[in-house]
Formats: sequence, structure tokens, C-alpha cells
Amino acid sequence: MANLSISRPFPLKNVRITDDFWSAYIRLVRNVVVPYQWEALNDRIEGAEPSHAMKNFKISAGLEQGEFYGMVFQDSDVAKWLEAVSYLLETGQDPELERLADEVITIIAKAQHKDGYLNTYFTLKEPNGRWTNLAECHELYCAGHLIEAAVAYYKATGKRTILDVACRLADCVNEVFGPGEGQIHGYDGHQEIELALVKLYQTTNNDNYLRLSLYFLDERGKEPSFFEQELHRRNGQVHFPDLDMVHDRTYNQAHLPVRLQQTAEGHAVRVVYMCSGMADVAAETGDQELLEACRRLWTNIVSKRMYITGAIGSMAQGESFTLDYDLPNDTAYAETCASIGLIFFAQRMLQMEAKSEYADIMEQALYNTVISGMSQDGKRFFYVNPLEVWPDAILKNHHMSHVKPVRQGWFGCACCPPNIARLLASLGQYIYTSQGNTVYTNLYIGSQITLDIEGQQVSIDQHSEFPWNGNVRFIIQVTEKTTFTLALRIPKWCTETKLTVQGIPVQLDEQVRDGYVYITREWQSNDSVELNLHMQVSRMKGHPHVRETIGKVALQCGPLVYCLEETDNGAGLHQIVLEPQDEHRKQFDHELLGGIQTISVPAKRIRSDDWEQKWGEHLYIANASHEWETINATFIPYYAWANRGQGEMSVWVKEK
Amino acid sequence: MANLSISRPFPLKNVRITDDFWSAYIRLVRNVVVPYQWEALNDRIEGAEPSHAMKNFKISAGLEQGEFYGMVFQDSDVAKWLEAVSYLLETGQDPELERLADEVITIIAKAQHKDGYLNTYFTLKEPNGRWTNLAECHELYCAGHLIEAAVAYYKATGKRTILDVACRLADCVNEVFGPGEGQIHGYDGHQEIELALVKLYQTTNNDNYLRLSLYFLDERGKEPSFFEQELHRRNGQVHFPDLDMVHDRTYNQAHLPVRLQQTAEGHAVRVVYMCSGMADVAAETGDQELLEACRRLWTNIVSKRMYITGAIGSMAQGESFTLDYDLPNDTAYAETCASIGLIFFAQRMLQMEAKSEYADIMEQALYNTVISGMSQDGKRFFYVNPLEVWPDAILKNHHMSHVKPVRQGWFGCACCPPNIARLLASLGQYIYTSQGNTVYTNLYIGSQITLDIEGQQVSIDQHSEFPWNGNVRFIIQVTEKTTFTLALRIPKWCTETKLTVQGIPVQLDEQVRDGYVYITREWQSNDSVELNLHMQVSRMKGHPHVRETIGKVALQCGPLVYCLEETDNGAGLHQIVLEPQDEHRKQFDHELLGGIQTISVPAKRIRSDDWEQKWGEHLYIANASHEWETINATFIPYYAWANRGQGEMSVWVKEK
Repeated sequence: MANLSISRPFPLKNVRITDDFWSAYIRLVRNVVVPYQWEALNDRIEGAEPSHAMKNFKISAGLEQGEFYGMVFQDSDVAKWLEAVSYLLETGQDPELERLADEVITIIAKAQHKDGYLNTYFTLKEPNGRWTNLAECHELYCAGHLIEAAVAYYKATGKRTILDVACRLADCVNEVFGPGEGQIHGYDGHQEIELALVKLYQTTNNDNYLRLSLYFLDERGKEPSFFEQELHRRNGQVHFPDLDMVHDRTYNQAHLPVRLQQTAEGHAVRVVYMCSGMADVAAETGDQELLEACRRLWTNIVSKRMYITGAIGSMAQGESFTLDYDLPNDTAYAETCASIGLIFFAQRMLQMEAKSEYADIMEQALYNTVISGMSQDGKRFFYVNPLEVWPDAILKNHHMSHVKPVRQGWFGCACCPPNIARLLASLGQYIYTSQGNTVYTNLYIGSQITLDIEGQQVSIDQHSEFPWNGNVRFIIQVTEKTTFTLALRIPKWCTETKLTVQGIPVQLDEQVRDGYVYITREWQSNDSVELNLHMQVSRMKGHPHVRETIGKVALQCGPLVYCLEETDNGAGLHQIVLEPQDEHRKQFDHELLGGIQTISVPAKRIRSDDWEQKWGEHLYIANASHEWETINATFIPYYAWANRGQGEMSVWVKEK
Repeated sequence: MANLSISRPFPLKNVRITDDFWSAYIRLVRNVVVPYQWEALNDRIEGAEPSHAMKNFKISAGLEQGEFYGMVFQDSDVAKWLEAVSYLLETGQDPELERLADEVITIIAKAQHKDGYLNTYFTLKEPNGRWTNLAECHELYCAGHLIEAAVAYYKATGKRTILDVACRLADCVNEVFGPGEGQIHGYDGHQEIELALVKLYQTTNNDNYLRLSLYFLDERGKEPSFFEQELHRRNGQVHFPDLDMVHDRTYNQAHLPVRLQQTAEGHAVRVVYMCSGMADVAAETGDQELLEACRRLWTNIVSKRMYITGAIGSMAQGESFTLDYDLPNDTAYAETCASIGLIFFAQRMLQMEAKSEYADIMEQALYNTVISGMSQDGKRFFYVNPLEVWPDAILKNHHMSHVKPVRQGWFGCACCPPNIARLLASLGQYIYTSQGNTVYTNLYIGSQITLDIEGQQVSIDQHSEFPWNGNVRFIIQVTEKTTFTLALRIPKWCTETKLTVQGIPVQLDEQVRDGYVYITREWQSNDSVELNLHMQVSRMKGHPHVRETIGKVALQCGPLVYCLEETDNGAGLHQIVLEPQDEHRKQFDHELLGGIQTISVPAKRIRSDDWEQKWGEHLYIANASHEWETINATFIPYYAWANRGQGEMSVWVKEK
């Protein structure tokens, strides 16, 4: 099979982010998140549950004495940290950080066994248990994260130590798993190695890794169940007795071969990591059946199982998808990592098919759920990103006990914070992709890229006022006049677009294909493109099958979804009803929450203070009439919620 | 302390129910439920989990070999069955049933230890564990149910065997528990014995039982925690490891002394059983502080924590109350037993305070949640009575996994079916109470009572068309002209009442006190009273603090709350919006569900079938307009739902 014609992101080192909005986040990752996480990995955060992740590696490396502590997948936290560090190093020199990373790499390398095996849990705790509990113990998942980190570090620094470690580990895995006799015919409970192996293949050109990735994908869901067979082989021993990772086949997407799956089932992060791997393999091999399965799962997720914030996973049990159109706002799981995984999946689909719908969802998840996942000081995180919160009920009603009304310091299962860090540190990879002579602009993030088109060096300067304003300007620099195509995404949220090239208006209708406008010309230095994506406030309505959004609207302006908070609107947000299509007053407040736009909307509110006086101490009254008061409802961007203490929040608001 | 001036129910044998609606239920209890339960208790129901309850008694009595099986409170199922049988015998002879009951009593008596102790779980399984795990093991709870059954059987038949068993058991408990040295200073995890001991006191006049009841009430919530102390004494051994019955003090209302409790917290059934016991003791002793606590908890429940169906318990975890105004419709627990307990509580409050609000709630719980708990063939039961059901989501979303979309055959924890049986079999106790020369009519249920007023025999014939029509007629028979007061409840749902005595209209305003109209006169035989309680269809609205009812209405007509079912209205009930205060067409359908009134209301429905065609495969659309279709929404009484297969159901419906 030949690989598909795909557009690729640019090497991170060729992308410099100069964006007002995002530069602050990336600085936060560099100056706060990554250093904070380093402290966490070394158990130096007061009050937080110790991570022990670095200690596990040191003990495995023979550098310290002690026992393994932490989750079975604790290793992956170090790998994700190292991956984030790699992206930071690729986009900006930092000898001190690089020295630290080298030290970590030395330790990791020492913890590797002679045969390439590398996993501190099994090394320290179950030395005879290697590869006996794939369903639960995340061995290949941890390997995948190590491989991703290794590829990133190699790309950033050119140093091979950790890449060699990763290759030896992948070779070890390749020997143990496969269709051959004496090999384990299995796959991991938590998908991750599939996409990592494709990265390693792309970096090393070693076909084995691509083949192994495909093998893992196609083993999943075969009958008889591999997880049940290995459970039998280990005499029924389970690692997480409270969960049922072995028999609940949808939990880890082992209910059907991946090519036959019609709907996104089970653990949401696993689904999107799996889909990312499927898309990677499809792109590299041209496997149309796999691509078709990707398209099908993508469509199922985004058209039936995704929150308006780009969040996925409707329930806490199994951190899972549930069924089409089941999107409860208050009991949502909506894990930060799942939206990050959705971005991974979107980016890969986008590389194969230049359709704006993929980038739209990438943007939706990024500007809403992903950055909602982190506090504005970079020190506190949401694992769960609900769309409606009543803090008193969270405390008392178990249905919401997985929801936190404010961001938490560090988690025992600390997957989300380092995932946010690695995504933001590598954000430059998501802005552009290129294929042949076409450069696709997928995200409007102020940045400078340099690229090579038919031997000519081209640089594109993007100036963006996103997410507050849809004015975007591109300035092109070329060494010589060069013909190429600049493709610009027209977001679905935008209904009024203006485009000029060198000041001359471009008629959009003819030039737009699949949500991108294509501008082909012979470019000269200082050529400019001005794009105005008008950011009106839209009242978003949900599909009538969604029970939790019917009769309600969500406000969206540009890529940002907005919400009501108690601190601006008082308690009892459910009593607020918007007048249909009333005026929306936008105001930018530089002082508020790091500088945000608020939207003020005239609304009515059902009064509750006079109920007892009017009706007595009764819960239910026949033909009761409500008293209404006129108010201004103040909306803030969803990502900024819960940064001013604990209170109610709601994305969906009733409309008359 | 002197006892309060209280009104008493009549002995069941003096009440004969002749009601169209309720006679059918009572016949069902006699002919189906009680025989079916007897089969269940003897493990003869095919496909149902074996109960083993009778076997446990037989083995304990030395009549059979074997081991204990079942829940730790399995004994109580037999006791509740026996209690129901007693009520049936008191209201109608049945020598065969009485013979069966006598056999059961013989077995129970043989299972009793010499010292009066009686509990098959501890006898068979933990003979050295008596009274070591009150928090979890329901020992006193089972004793309480046995006492209730014994009192009922003695009243019905005059036979003392089981009453003597109960007294010996109560004497045993009275020796073991109390403030004295060497006694256990404790109380049961699940309240029940408190109210049972008052019944035993009322039957035997033995003060010890009343004192012990008060003792148990006042021990609860003392510091240090008795449950923690006994946990420590048994070295941390727990019976239900998945629950935390010891440390979660609100679960069993041990968070505060009962006199200080302000809100209904924890396990809903326990709360109302406790309150019933508190009210009993208050009535017998005149303890005003206890009465005040009852009033406070009553008000908290009915004005802040009760569903419109008279159901209580907002969450499955701990089968518990949560917080004020938290009344989710789809994840409700709303256990049948809890509404039965609320009726117990209401009846006791009513006896102390002749206020219609108590009888109103009694009626609300009875006509809605209690009979919703049983299928129309008497063979299937709801434990949980939700107010909104989406069956597909129940299967897939764990938040609803405690909800069943159709009634189930028999439960491993079979508390609800026998509780329904004993309530319906004793329904005659809830219709009237009397105090001095006043006879209170609390429920409008066709019946004949005979009573003695100042030496004169009086009989009252009530003819009622409830719940379909508010016409009620009373015919009085007296041996001689007798002066007494007939007090008739004016339900809160009724806004138009007509009353005639001997055909002469009575002006109500002057005669109504606390929701009862008092008619005092010298009655002659064949005197008639005609009461017309107009049953209009009311649109009920919830308190604006209730998030799940805001913007919605529930239809109520007379005591019945109505609901929409998928079978009448198609799937997607959330898409239906009622026009405000439109016409309600009532129709009685003799063929439907045993004969019910339906209510048809013109409404609009958001169309969902054209969404994809109009907006494409998208979940969220900016400024989307919905297409509406005009429909007739058909409501059926809530109690009758889920008798025509599985489908959506909703009590609360949007209103424009």
C-alpha cells in the first residue's frame, strides 16, 4: 500500500509563536507548569500526594534504594514532562533545562534492562509479571509515552541517547508481540503505543515500527478475547479490583475489531488515542478501510457525542462515552486529556483531508476545554470539565462527586497536567500544515514560520487578534518571487468573512473548498493578506435529540464558548431566561481574568425570594405564576471559569 | 409527662373498604401479592433470586439442616409478610391463611432462644456475634418488624403466641440495651424498633417498651460515636465493605442527637421510620421537644426535599436525601419503602395535629409513588420510582443504573414488595381517626366504619369516586340520635368545594380549621353529607430553587400526578412543550390500564427529523430555528406508568 497524499505540520523549530493570547500560555508552561511538574515528579509539592515518579526511575536505575510507589502508569508522567521539555527546547534554547533533561535521560537509560525492557512498576514490583496484564497495567502505554518523548527530544536536540533507548524498547516490544509462534498475540489496555510507534517509524524509517502499530490496531477486538485469555493465564489476578477492565470490552474498545467499530464506545481518551494511531497508520500505508473507520468514528463523536466545548466522555464510570445525544452538563466527565486526544485525532485527519471541520473541532477543544483544564496561574488543574456546576450539590449528591468546583493542585492520577503542558508547548505544530506547494492555515495564532518551497525559503508572519477579534494579517517574505498557495480556514462559526490580498478584495465563494479559501499567486516579499473573520455572538442550539440543551442556548463568539458564573450573576443560574435574539453587549475588560471579553445580555430572571411569602412553605403550587425581574446576564469565556473562587456555572442557558 | 391529646385510627376490624379503586388493590394483595410473596419466601419463584427467608427460620428452629442465606435482614421479609397477613385476617376471615400463619408462628417461636433472642442470621452464621454490629446488621430492625407483625397478629386473631415471642424478644433487648452498667449504650443502624416498641407498649401497657423506644431515640447521635466504638471493639470488621455505614454518620442519622436535627439527612427510609418513632413517643409522653423536632424534619422533607409524587430520596448512593431543592428526576432514588415510611410519619403527625397538610402528603405518596411501586398484576415491583426515564440511557449511563425502566419480579433486597402489601392490607387504618367526639376523615376511600361515641354505636358509610371524581357521600347510621363532629379534609389540590348536609349547603369558610371542615350536629340515621371536591386539572409548578422543574409543569388532577409515556406520545418526550394554560381534555378509558383517566393537552413539539437535512451532521448550530409541529400530548396517571412495556416517561413537561 502506498501512503496517502498528506499535508504535514512544520518542524516546531520553524514555528515561532508571537501571539498575544497563546504566548502567555506558553510562557506559563515554560516558567510555571514545567518547573512545577518537575517539583511534583520529585515529590517536592507541599500538600500534594507524592508522585514518586522520578524516584521509581532512580531506584530502577540502581541509583537509590526503595520501593515502587504510585499508579501502575506513573512512568508516563516523566515521559510526558520530558516530551513537553523537548518542545520547549525546540522552540527556545534553555541550557539549564536541557541539562536537567539530559540527567533524566541518563537515569531512564540506566533503568532500561539489557533486553530493552523499560518499566519501573514491573522492574521493581512484579519482576516476573512482565506482559502478563496488558488489560490493566499500561505497560505498552508507558512505552508509547517514552517513545513520544524520545522522538521529541531527538528532534529538539539531535541527541540520540533517549531515541536509542526508545528504539531498544520498541525492538523489545516487537520481539515479544506479533503473529509469530511464541509471541504474544495481544495489545495494550490503553492505546498510546500505536501512535507512538508511527512517530518512531517516521523518525527512524524502520518499517518494523509501523508494522507493529498496525498489528496492535488489528489485534484489538479479535475473538477470543485476549484480555480474558491473559486473565485466565494469571489465574484471575486483577490489578484494579474496583474496575472491570477485562470483561467490559467496550471500556478499552475491544468489543469489535477497530475496522468494524461504528460508534465511539468506552473510555474516551483511549478512543481518541486509538483513532489517532489508526489515522497515522492509514496515512502512512494508504489503508482506505482504516481511514473509513476513522471517518466513521470521527463523525460519531463530533455529531453525536461531543459537548459544545469540544469535551468528550459523558460519564465518570469508565471515563466513558455513553450513547448518542447523551450529554449531561452537570455529571459530564469531559476529561481534559480526552479533548487533547481529540485534537491529536483532528490534526491527523486534517493531514489526510484538508477539510475545515477537523480544524474547527481542534480549535473548539483547544480554546475551551483544554485551557479550561488549567488555572490562570498554571498551578491548578481540572481533570473533569463540566458544563454546569452547582457546588452545593457536588458536595452532597454522589452523581457529581467526580466533579470539582475549583481546580485542584495535583492528582494521584496526574495524566491531565502534563498532557496540557506537552500540547501547549507543541502548539506551533497545529497552526499550519503543508502539502506540496500549498500551505494550510488551520489555526489563527500569531506566529512566524519559515519553510522551503521548491528550494525557495519562504516565511509567513501571521498577526492575529484571536480569540477577541477576527482580524488576521499575513505578511509573506520570500527570497525570490515564488508561486505557492496559501489556504486559509473559514471557521464554521464565522458567517461574514472579508479577504483582501495586497488590499484587493477577494470574492470568496469561488475560492472556498471544504472550508478553506485557496489563494494561489506568485508571492513577493511584503505581500500581505488580510482576513477578517467577523466574530458575532451566536446563540448556539443543540440537536433536538440532546435532552440537556433543548430550550436552551449557549453563547459563542469566535472560537470561544461562554458561560454564566455565580460571581457575576448571583446564585440560581437556572432561574435566568434570555430573551430570544436580544442585543449582546461585548466589552473587553483588561483587568478581569487576565483580560477577557465579557458579553452582557438583557434577560429575565424568575424571582425565588418571594415564593414563601406568596405560596407558603410549599414545594409545588398549582397554577403558580412566577415573578420576573429584568437583569443583565454577564457571560465570560468558559475557559476562564472557576478562577474567582467557588460558585455556580452554566454554559447552557434557557431562552424564551 | 402526660401524653398528648391525640386522635386514633380505628381498629382495622371496624373498617371495611368498599372502594372501587382500592378494593381492587386490596384484593390483589390478598389473592396475588401475599400468596406470591409466600412462594418467594419459600424459594419457589422460578427465575427469582432465592429468598431463603423461611428456610433460615426452619434451620434456626432445628427443623431443617442447612446454612443461613440471604441479606442480614432477611428475617424482616417474613415478619412483613406476617404483618400483611394479619391485616388481611383482621379485615376478612381466611382459615387457610390463618393456619399458614400459625405454622409460620410456630416455626418462629421455635427459632427463638431461651433468653428471648431471635435472629436467624446471628443464630446460624455468627452465634458469637450478637449485638456486636448494630451499625450494619439490622438486628434491632428485624426485631422491630417481628414486633410489628406480632402486635398485628394478636389484634387480628387474639392469639398470643407470637405476641409472647415479641415480648420475650423485647424484654431481651431491654436487658441488653440501656443506660445501666453492663448494658450496651447503643442503637440500631436502621431505625424500626423505635416505632415497633411503641406499638408493643400500646398493646401490652408495659412501660418498659416505651422507655426503651425513647432510649434508642435519644442515644442516636451522641458523642463519641457508638458505631465507631463498636467497630473498634470488633477490630474493624465490616459487614458491607462497599458501604461506609459506620463513619458516614448522616447515613443513619447519627450525625446529631435527633432533637437537634434540622434537616432530613441520609438514608430516606431510616429518616421517616425514625421520625415515626419520634412522633409515637412524643404522642405517648407529651414530649414537646421531640414533637418540635418532628415538625421541623417534616417541614424540611415536604417543603424542600420531596418529589411531587410524594417520593423522597434524591440519590442512589446511600438511598439518601441530598440537600434542599436537589430533586433530579432521572437519577432519583425515590424508593417505594421511603414513601410508605413517609405515610407512617404523616399518619402519626396527623394524630397529634389535625392539619390537612399531613393527610395531603399521605394521599400524595399513596396515590402516586406507593402504587407506582407495584404492577397492575401485583407480581412486579419498583424499588426506585423515577420521575423521568430514558431507557436507552439507563442501559448505558451509570448514573441511572439503579433505575429500572420496567418493574422487576423480586429483589435480592426485597424490602419494598412486602412493605406495599402491609400498607395496602392495613389501608383501613388511614381513612379515619377520632378524638373524643370528633371523627376525622383523612382519606376519601369508600368504606364502612363502626365506632362507639359515648356509648352509642355509630356507623359511617363513605361512598367515594376518588381518584377520578371528587364526589363523596357519607351516610350516618346511629342507634339513637347522637351528637358528634364529622371533620372532613379539604385537600390542598381542591380549589372549589361544595358541601351539603341533608341537602342543605354549608358555607365552608367559617367551618374550616387547618384544612378540615367541622360538622357538628345531632345525627340521625340516614343523615347524609355530600362533599364535592372539584378535581380540576392543575398545572403544578415547582419552587424556583428546584433546578429540575423550572420552566416545566406537572399535571395533577385530584390526588393523581400525571405523566407522559412514550407509548402514547412517541420517543423524545423532552421535545414536547405545552402551551400555557391551554385546554385539558379529560377522558376515562375503561379498557386502558385497568380503567384510567387520560388527559389530553394541545402542545407543540420540536421536530428532530429534519435537523440533519437542514443543518447537516452537526450537534450545535448557530441561531438555529426549530421546526414545531402541533400535537396532542396524552398524559396518564403516574402510578400506571410502565405497564405497557419499556419506554420513555416524564412527569415534568416544558411549558411555554
